[in-house]
Parts: sequence; C-alpha cells; structure tokens
Amino acid sequence: MRIGVLTAGGDCPGLNAVIRSVVHRGVAAHGDEVIGFEDGFRGLLEGHVRPLDLDDVGGILALGGTILGSSRLERARLHEAVEGARQLTTAYGLDALIPIGGEGTLTAARMLSDAGMPVVGVPKTIDNDICGTDRTFGFDTAVTVATEAIDRLKTTAESHQRVMVVEVMGRHAGWIALESGMAGGAHGICVPERPFDPADLVAMVTERFSRRKKFAVVCVAEGAHPAEGTMAYGRGAVDQFGHERFFGIGNRLAAELESRLGTEARPVILGHVQRGGVPTPYDRVLATRFGWHAVEAAHAGAFGTMTALRGTGIERVPLAEAVAELKRVPPDRMREAESVF
Amino acid sequence: MRIGVLTAGGDCPGLNAVIRSVVHRGVAAHGDEVIGFEDGFRGLLEGHVRPLDLDDVGGILALGGTILGSSRLERARLHEAVEGARQLTTAYGLDALIPIGGEGTLTAARMLSDAGMPVVGVPKTIDNDICGTDRTFGFDTAVTVATEAIDRLKTTAESHQRVMVVEVMGRHAGWIALESGMAGGAHGICVPERPFDPADLVAMVTERFSRRKKFAVVCVAEGAHPAEGTMAYGRGAVDQFGHERFFGIGNRLAAELESRLGTEARPVILGHVQRGGVPTPYDRVLATRFGWHAVEAAHAGAFGTMTALRGTGIERVPLAEAVAELKRVPPDRMREAESVF
Amino acid sequence: MRIGVLTAGGDCPGLNAVIRSVVHRGVAAHGDEVIGFEDGFRGLLEGHVRPLDLDDVGGILALGGTILGSSRLERARLHEAVEGARQLTTAYGLDALIPIGGEGTLTAARMLSDAGMPVVGVPKTIDNDICGTDRTFGFDTAVTVATEAIDRLKTTAESHQRVMVVEVMGRHAGWIALESGMAGGAHGICVPERPFDPADLVAMVTERFSRRKKFAVVCVAEGAHPAEGTMAYGRGAVDQFGHERFFGIGNRLAAELESRLGTEARPVILGHVQRGGVPTPYDRVLATRFGWHAVEAAHAGAFGTMTALRGTGIERVPLAEAVAELKRVPPDRMREAESVF
Amino acid sequence: MRIGVLTAGGDCPGLNAVIRSVVHRGVAAHGDEVIGFEDGFRGLLEGHVRPLDLDDVGGILALGGTILGSSRLERARLHEAVEGARQLTTAYGLDALIPIGGEGTLTAARMLSDAGMPVVGVPKTIDNDICGTDRTFGFDTAVTVATEAIDRLKTTAESHQRVMVVEVMGRHAGWIALESGMAGGAHGICVPERPFDPADLVAMVTERFSRRKKFAVVCVAEGAHPAEGTMAYGRGAVDQFGHERFFGIGNRLAAELESRLGTEARPVILGHVQRGGVPTPYDRVLATRFGWHAVEAAHAGAFGTMTALRGTGIERVPLAEAVAELKRVPPDRMREAESVF
Repeated sequence: MRIGVLTAGGDCPGLNAVIRSVVHRGVAAHGDEVIGFEDGFRGLLEGHVRPLDLDDVGGILALGGTILGSSRLERARLHEAVEGARQLTTAYGLDALIPIGGEGTLTAARMLSDAGMPVVGVPKTIDNDICGTDRTFGFDTAVTVATEAIDRLKTTAESHQRVMVVEVMGRHAGWIALESGMAGGAHGICVPERPFDPADLVAMVTERFSRRKKFAVVCVAEGAHPAEGTMAYGRGAVDQFGHERFFGIGNRLAAELESRLGTEARPVILGHVQRGGVPTPYDRVLATRFGWHAVEAAHAGAFGTMTALRGTGIERVPLAEAVAELKRVPPDRMREAESVF
Repeated sequence: MRIGVLTAGGDCPGLNAVIRSVVHRGVAAHGDEVIGFEDGFRGLLEGHVRPLDLDDVGGILALGGTILGSSRLERARLHEAVEGARQLTTAYGLDALIPIGGEGTLTAARMLSDAGMPVVGVPKTIDNDICGTDRTFGFDTAVTVATEAIDRLKTTAESHQRVMVVEVMGRHAGWIALESGMAGGAHGICVPERPFDPADLVAMVTERFSRRKKFAVVCVAEGAHPAEGTMAYGRGAVDQFGHERFFGIGNRLAAELESRLGTEARPVILGHVQRGGVPTPYDRVLATRFGWHAVEAAHAGAFGTMTALRGTGIERVPLAEAVAELKRVPPDRMREAESVF
Repeated sequence: MRIGVLTAGGDCPGLNAVIRSVVHRGVAAHGDEVIGFEDGFRGLLEGHVRPLDLDDVGGILALGGTILGSSRLERARLHEAVEGARQLTTAYGLDALIPIGGEGTLTAARMLSDAGMPVVGVPKTIDNDICGTDRTFGFDTAVTVATEAIDRLKTTAESHQRVMVVEVMGRHAGWIALESGMAGGAHGICVPERPFDPADLVAMVTERFSRRKKFAVVCVAEGAHPAEGTMAYGRGAVDQFGHERFFGIGNRLAAELESRLGTEARPVILGHVQRGGVPTPYDRVLATRFGWHAVEAAHAGAFGTMTALRGTGIERVPLAEAVAELKRVPPDRMREAESVF
Repeated sequence: MRIGVLTAGGDCPGLNAVIRSVVHRGVAAHGDEVIGFEDGFRGLLEGHVRPLDLDDVGGILALGGTILGSSRLERARLHEAVEGARQLTTAYGLDALIPIGGEGTLTAARMLSDAGMPVVGVPKTIDNDICGTDRTFGFDTAVTVATEAIDRLKTTAESHQRVMVVEVMGRHAGWIALESGMAGGAHGICVPERPFDPADLVAMVTERFSRRKKFAVVCVAEGAHPAEGTMAYGRGAVDQFGHERFFGIGNRLAAELESRLGTEARPVILGHVQRGGVPTPYDRVLATRFGWHAVEAAHAGAFGTMTALRGTGIERVPLAEAVAELKRVPPDRMREAESVF
C-alpha cells in the first residue's frame, strides 16, 4: 500500500511516536510505502510531501513536536480539499491517509472520508476531550507537567502561608485540571463543565486556615468560568493605545481571592509547557499502539474510522462517533476529587 | 463506620495515596473512624494499630513507601488470622477492613472475607498482573523508571556500538518489560510468557549492524527464560565457600550475546529502583480513586470485592475473580511490540 | 553550644537541607542543643521557638520549602531586634544564631552581629546574586526548572513556526536567564544588567527564518527592560474599576515581537514554580555543606561571617563583604552566550 | 582557522553540547571551518572525517551520547598517531585539534601536542577525577541519576526495614559516591580513597535500628574496597564451564551485611544509566562554556592547554598539569559527609 500521514492542529507529545509507528508497521511489516505531508492538510493541498523510510524515523520516539510540522487549516481550504478528495487521492496514489489530529482534524477527516478518500484517523489532544476513546496520547504528559508544577508550588505556598492559583490548559473540558489537581493534591479544582462560585473557594481557604493549614492551592482550567454574578474581576483592561488586553481566569481568580481573603494569592499560568517536549512512557506506548493499529485498519479497509483505546485494547471507532460531541468531565469524576483536605 | 486499613507485600508507589484517600473520604465525607494496622496483617494479629486522622495523612500523597509499614505474612500466621477472623473483627470493632496488596494479600483477603470479616480489597502491584482490573497503581511508575533508564542507555549503546541488556522487574508477567520496552524503543523484548531463543536476538542485532545501526537494546523481564536448550550460560556459580551464587537472566543473556556476537554486550539490572519513590501522576490518581471507591464499597456493604479500573470507571470486582489467575501479557500485545527497528 | 537557626525571605529549594545539616552536625557531632525560630526573625522577636533534634529533621533533606516557615521582616521590627540584640541573645541563651536568607536577611544578620549577637549567616537565593560566594543553593534548582520548560517550549515553537518568550525569575540579576537560556539553547537572552533593544531580537528572528529555522525562543529575566524609547508596549492597563493592572516584561515583549514580526509570539511566565519543590542534588550538597560549615564556624567563634563556596571549598566570608553589593552578570559571561543559533 | 574536533573514551552527558559550542563559536563568530573525526582518534588515523556546519549541530544540545562516535585507542595506534603528528596536522590542514576526553585522551592530547600538533583539550569524565578543573561536565548528571535512585530506594528500604547497598560508578575516585550519597542522605559512603571495614557499617546499622530507624542505605563506589582481612565475601565464583565470574563490591557488600546483620540487605548496581542520556542544565552550561573557550584558546594560540573551571571562570590549564595525577576525594570532603543520620 501507499500510505500518507500528516499531523494537524496544536502540538501534542507523542505525534512523532505515531509517525514512527506507522512507518515501522507499514514499511517493515507490510512492505508499504509511506509518505508524509508537511504542515498538516496544507501539505496535502500544496504538494509538500516527502517519503518516510525507516531511517527517517530513527531517534524520534521520545522527541516532542512533529517532524512533519503542523498547521491549522482555514475553512475555505478545507472545502477545497473535500471537493478535490478523489483527485488528491489519485494524484498521490494514496491507498490510505492517516491524519493525526484533534476534533477539528477528525471532523475534516470525516468529511474527506465521506467524499471518497480512504481515511483512518488517529485522535490527538492533550485535553483528552475526544469521544470514543478512553484516553488520548499527550494527555498524560500534560497532566505530568502540571502536577510537577503543583508539587513545587505547594511547598512555597506552605512556607509563605499563601494561596496559589494554577491555571492549566483545557478550554472546553477540565480533564487536565481534574487529574493534575487530584495528583497534586490541589484543595480546589475548577473546570469548564461546572461554573464555580469564588465564595466556595473563599470558604474552603478560610476553613483550612482555621485548622492551622495556612495555605491552599487551587487548580483552574483555562476555560473555567465563574457562575454569573459571582465574581467582580473582569477580563478586560485597556492599555495606553486604547487596545483591550485580556486577563485569563487564573489571574482574575487570584486577584479575586486576594481581595476577598486579605491573604496573598498568586497566579501561575502554566501555558505551553504542557503541550511540548518529551512524552511520558504512557503516551509513547499509546501513540505507538495507535500508529500500529491505524496501519492494520488501513490494510483491513476499515476506512472512516479512528483508532481508540477501550479498556486495555485498541479498537476502531467510526469517525462520526468521535466527533459527535466533546467528551466532558462527568459529575461523578468531579465527586471523586471533592474529598481533598 | 470504623474502618481498618493495612498495606502488605512489596513496596509500591501509590500506597500512601490510597491510605490518604481512605482517610479523606472516610473521615471527612462520612464521619468514619479510620485505624491503621502496622506492618500488614502482622499488625492486625499483634495489635499494632493506630488512629488515622486527617492530620496523619497530610503531605503523603506523593510520598513513596507506606507510612503503615509492610510485611509478608507466613502461611501459618495467615491461617491463624483466618480462624480468628470474626474475633478480630469484633475485637477491633471493625465495620470494614481495607487491605491493600498484591495477589497474596488479596488471596488472604478473600479467605478472611469467606471467614466472616467485612473486607474490601485494593489491588496493588507494580507488575500489573492482577486480573479483573485494567491496571494497578505502581505499574506506571515502574514503567517510567525503566523507560528513563532505557532512554539513557540508548545513547551510550549508540556512542559505543554496543548491545545493552536491561533487566526489569516481572517475575511471572512481562508487563513492565513490554511497556518500558515499547516506550524506550528497545529492539528486543523478552517476557516470562514466551520463552525466547537467544539466536533470534543474535539475528536481530546482526541485521541492525548490517544496516549500519551499530547498537541495540534488549529489555528482559527478570522472569523471562530461554527456550530449553537454546542458551549456554547457566544460573549458578560456586564461590570460595562452596556456596552457590546466582546470576539473573540479564547477566546471563548479556554474557551469551557477547560470546555469540563478538560485540560488547553489557547488562544493567534495574532492581528495586522500580518499586520505590514518588509515584507518577497517573498512579496517584488511580490510587486516590481506589481509596475513594473502597470506602464507598464499604458503606454500600459490598464486601468480598476489590476496587478495579475498567475502562475509565472504577468498579467492584469479586475477590474470587481477581485471584483466580495471574493476568499475563497476551500474544496480541506482544505482536504490537514486534515492529520496532 | 546552644544554636538557634531561622529561615527568612522567599522560598528556596535547599532550606530544609541546611536546617537538617545544622542539626546533624551540631547535635550528633558536637553535642549541641539546636533550637529553631519560626517564621524567620518574627519567631525570634515573638518567642516562637522549638527544639530541633535528630528526629525532627528526619526525611526533610529533599523536601522543598522550610519546616520553620519564613517571613519578610518590616524595617521597624528589624530595628527592634537590633536594639535588643544582646537581650535576645541572653534571653534565649544563644551561643550562636544561624540565619539562612538572602540579601535582606544577611544585612539584618550583619546589623545584629554588629550589635553583639553571635551570628553566622548562610546565604540563600535562587537568583544567585549574593557576592562573596561562587553560587548559592536554590539557583541550580531554579535553572533546572526553567531549562526543562524551555526544552518543552522549543518543540512546540518549532512545530508551529512560532516565537516563544519565556520569562524567568531575576529582578536585579540575570543569572537564571543566562544559565537556563544557555542550557535550553535560547536564541535570545535578556537580563537586567543590559537594557535590550527589541529590534535586535526582531533581527535575530528574521535571520533565523531566512535560514529556514522558522522558530525562536527568547529567555527574558523578569527584571530585564528595554533601552529607553525602543519599545511601544507599556506596562499598564486600566481595568473596569479604574485600577491599573500590570503586564510583566514577558507579556509585553511577546506582544511587541508579534506586532513587529507579524509572526505568532507567545509568552510563558514561569513564576513561582522556580522557587519551590525538591532541590536538585547539586543544591542539596551545597546546602548540606553550608549547614555543616556554619556549625563549625560557630564553634570556631567566627561570628559576623557567612559560609561561601569558593572554587571547591567552603570558606568564611565577612557579612560586610557579602552585602556590599549585588553580584551581577558580568559582560564576559554574556558574551559566552551570544554565539547561539 | 580549520579546527578538528573529536570525542574519545567512555560516554558522558554533555559531549554533544561541547561539539555544538565549538561549531557555533568557530563557524559563526570566527568564520572558522570545523571538521569532526569519527570514533575518536581512530577517525583521525583512518581518515573518517566530516564537515561540521551550523545545521549539523542543530538540536543536539540536550542529546546524550556523541554524534561523532567514540572509541578507546590501543596504545600502539596512539604511538602511530604521535609519530605522525605533524604529517596528520598538515594532511588535514588543521590549525587546531580539540579532543574531548578523559585522562587517557588528555594524556594522548599532551603527547600529540609535544609532538607538534596544535591541541586544545577539553576535559570530560563523569567521575570528576581530572586535576586542574573544579568540575567536569557529565559529573552532575551522573550524580543526579544516582541520587534519584537513592531517593527511590530509601522509601522501599524504610517500608521493608531493610538495608540497601547502592553501587555507583567511580573506579579510582569516589566523587559520585560522595555527592550522590550526601544528596540522597545515604547513611554510609564507601570510596576508593579510603578502604572500609564492614564492621563499621554493621555498627552504624545496628545503632540506627536501636533508635527505631529500621533501615539504612549504603552508597558504595565501584572501586571501593574493604581494608585487608575485614571481609569474608570474595570476588570470584566459578560457573559450570569452569569460568570465573565476578561479583562487584555492591553485591559482595550486601551479602556480607546480610550475613552479619541477619537483616535483609539488597544490592542495586546502577551501572551505565549514570553515563548516558540528557545532560543536566549544569552540565550543558559547563560543556557549552568549555567549547566556547576551547575555540578562543585556539585562536589565541594557547596550545598544549585544556579548558578548566576555576571558581566561576573558565581558564586555560597546561595539559601536563591536568594529567599529572588523578583528583581524588580529600579527607576533609569525606568528613563533611560523616554527620548523617
């Protein structure tokens, strides 16, 4: 077979491990020819493509980023790709295309598949918010980076009798906040799925201080937001040019807590360190398995699917199912994190 | 309720996270009283017990080891415990006992349960070989430690054109070897489930050298063994006192490969570093969830069960099911690891 | 002897290692009695003191933060302490006081010493800006945390053809920016010692892009500032309450570069993760040696000094010398970092 | 100038950082031409050489191993090189050769220099045993790996009331044992510089157990040895083929302690994980500075020297001084490590 592979969307630890695995399984086990499109779908449209042989993927298993580059595709160009799906398939002589990406990429993959391109998707998101799979690679690494930060912040909070507000990634789903908050022993966790009331955090901190635990750590997802009318600090401020400049929820919440508690509250915004660098062993294994099974799916002609972790096995899930909705943190997972002191 | 907790068997990262979670959920959410038995079942038999309150579990979430101590119980004493199960329950006023341990401990737990003690088990093993649960805590940490070692060894192997043989834990099951081997990109993986032939490894190394990849890393579980008659190097040697002294499979395999290949082959035996120290975030979350759900199971009267990870949720599994057999690496998981170059 | 110890100022990895070492050397080798003052000089003034025996310092070698707590002392209270130096010494029966702290603390230590208190200081700052010693403990840990962040950000920058601006600690001296920038391979480094011109960074990025290296990482100390008139983006903005809210140099520089380059430039503000948590082995060794030598200095009657690293040995340096001026990054160290591509 | 660079001897984290720095400083700042000899001096003798340009050293700063390969040179071939020193210099058009290596390599470098080759050495050893420089790169990484292992082993030792014997590298000098032992809080440290008596370790463990600290960790350098007549367990054993097979000091000492104490004592031999993989930030900075200054030394015509860390600066030290003797752990450094409990 002739298999194309591309990576699209935001950076995610494990992308290179998938690419490597596709090449290993395809080239070495099946005698396939593998080609890589550069910078995501843009390479597919513009003909930026290169052969991927065993030597090209040497030493990249633990390498962060993606050797193929990535980009986000504008809607117009996506439609261009969908309309030309059959021609592109023929032009490159593709027997299968394996796009590795998040919700947007998998939606595009589904459209290309419906338009006649033989597609097997591989889900990718540090946010863990794709349906149909128990976990996505990159998530464990993001949680690990965030937890290591919380571990460090706790000792400082305790030594200085201070509140720390850690903002982690997660625009639409709070998985990183939930798991890094649990793993780091955060005393409060705020996720997009459930609007929070700063008064509850104030009560928690006050209660801790009354027990002589004179510090607290709050872990807040970037997409978390206060219930309406519960928070004074707004998002915007206007700079000397009259431009609006925004503060994220971490900065706002720290300011709010400090002003209500009369105790130092410091924000830490982890940002992009959560999405780059060496993947954890968990993510390397999952990414490697996804690549292996994507090639098998291609050889089985199981197009229009994506690889998914279900329990301990890798299964094929229809792309339609994967992109139907976001996978959000359910209430019972939040309950498991509540009894932390 | 009055809940007893104990840790038994080998060290495992995440034990303290379970203890902490039991106390948090029991004491703070349910108003339970929690007591800890020291050094495993021995504390139960000999009355070494202490109250566990919120303050006793402060700061232990990420701490390796177990604040309660651990021990392995002799068979005779186990029978003593089983025969006195009801009396012990009454004497300590136990409404539930939560033993945290591996196969031996869970077998004991089942016997105690059958004898009338209200038991909810929590499975623990770095080896990941307990049935009924997708994963056990401690395993991710062990894999991480082993993978970091392989990462380091690879650069040395490459610089010196050398074969490295890494022996990891896993007496009866090869999960650590499988996953750290995959994550570290080992070129050969040997597990107890499948006797290996050194000739296959010799062929793999030779093939690599012929492609100018002049190094290789082999990851071997301590319980792996050669197919009968395939290996010259034996286990034993006799020292100056006439005592037998043993060499593990890592040392033997390195000697065998070096002698057959005429190329340097060095063994590294990772040993106990795999079972101690700070648990990974993954293990902290799993351990915390297990503790939370064990308390809920106790309150639900679901005795004779253990907590188990199934997909993304924590379920209750009969202890009988958990200890029926060991969970071994199935052939299809081994196949996923074969296409590595 | 009766030796008092206290920790003052900002959190710094290694504080507990010093405390432990003072107790080990004092109690076990010399038969001293060691007492700890809580929350820095405040404990000395307000009588919050506790005995420190071998058991009290068990397990704290690698623990971040300080078991004694810390605080910053107001000037008025410092003068109170200085005026009462002899009475305090007598009241506590102190034969020596070992304050562990940064420039402010060592200045206070010097004043107390001049006023008759038997003081041996131990220098502490993650910023590495204290004169008289080659290095301070805490610095290596801060550099390590910052470097790990840069390592992760680089892969994301490269995958997305983006500029990353990493703001690290260092208000008055750029040591952390210099060493983490060098260790992480940052393409630009901005320190407080040398005002920078954003145009130079724009030129560097442009040159890189022209060589098809389509990403760059800039490491900027929080105290770095643009040369006058070179930067459009200001510090302040006004929120909906009319309050000024400030943006640090990292945010401003990213905005400035993005606007000038027309390329995405993202800020990451590392913040307090640099000053908490487990100290590196380097810092543990240095902190342990400082504690050991501080006790020896006390027994030698070498008051008014602080411990200092000089080459490979620990020496005694007059406190006056240590606080005379800040240790800033000299031009030749900056030159060593310039040839990075 | 035309500058040659090569790496020789055992693997050491930071080698690639030196190579990169030589290229950056040479090519970009001075307009030099840099060439790399493969597999150490062997490449010089056999003409395995390749140009090193800026692109060749992209992304290698944090990479373990050496992109040039390494080897140990037999004595005969060294003499061949020395005799042909001038011809080799002319043949390659070398204005300077920068060999990066340990004691053996620097001795060869000195002989080549004496024979007329323009040489500037860069010292390299994880053992830190080269005279003339405060530290060598690679050492900090080795200490960090060893300390992380001790950290992990301590929790297991404590949970199981067990003695752990950790064998670390250091054949002739005990620097790694000293610093990782101090950083990890080992209760006993054995170095080659001072023959030890197992009875002292037995006494230490016994004393700890009597204080209810029922565990101990002993850190022993591979080159440490018992004082004559103090230890029963020998090195050798004879296998089924009549071959002698050897046990290192870690295995022997654990057997000895277990037999004398009647308490479990387990050996862990860290081995090659200490010399491979990602260098710590400290080592990356030191390696980068060494490379930078080696190029400057070449341009200054300061041949016959090596770069050396002295205090905070990099200086030029005659090669003769560097190889005159090994740098051993002095008694006063051992004394600093004695008060550990």
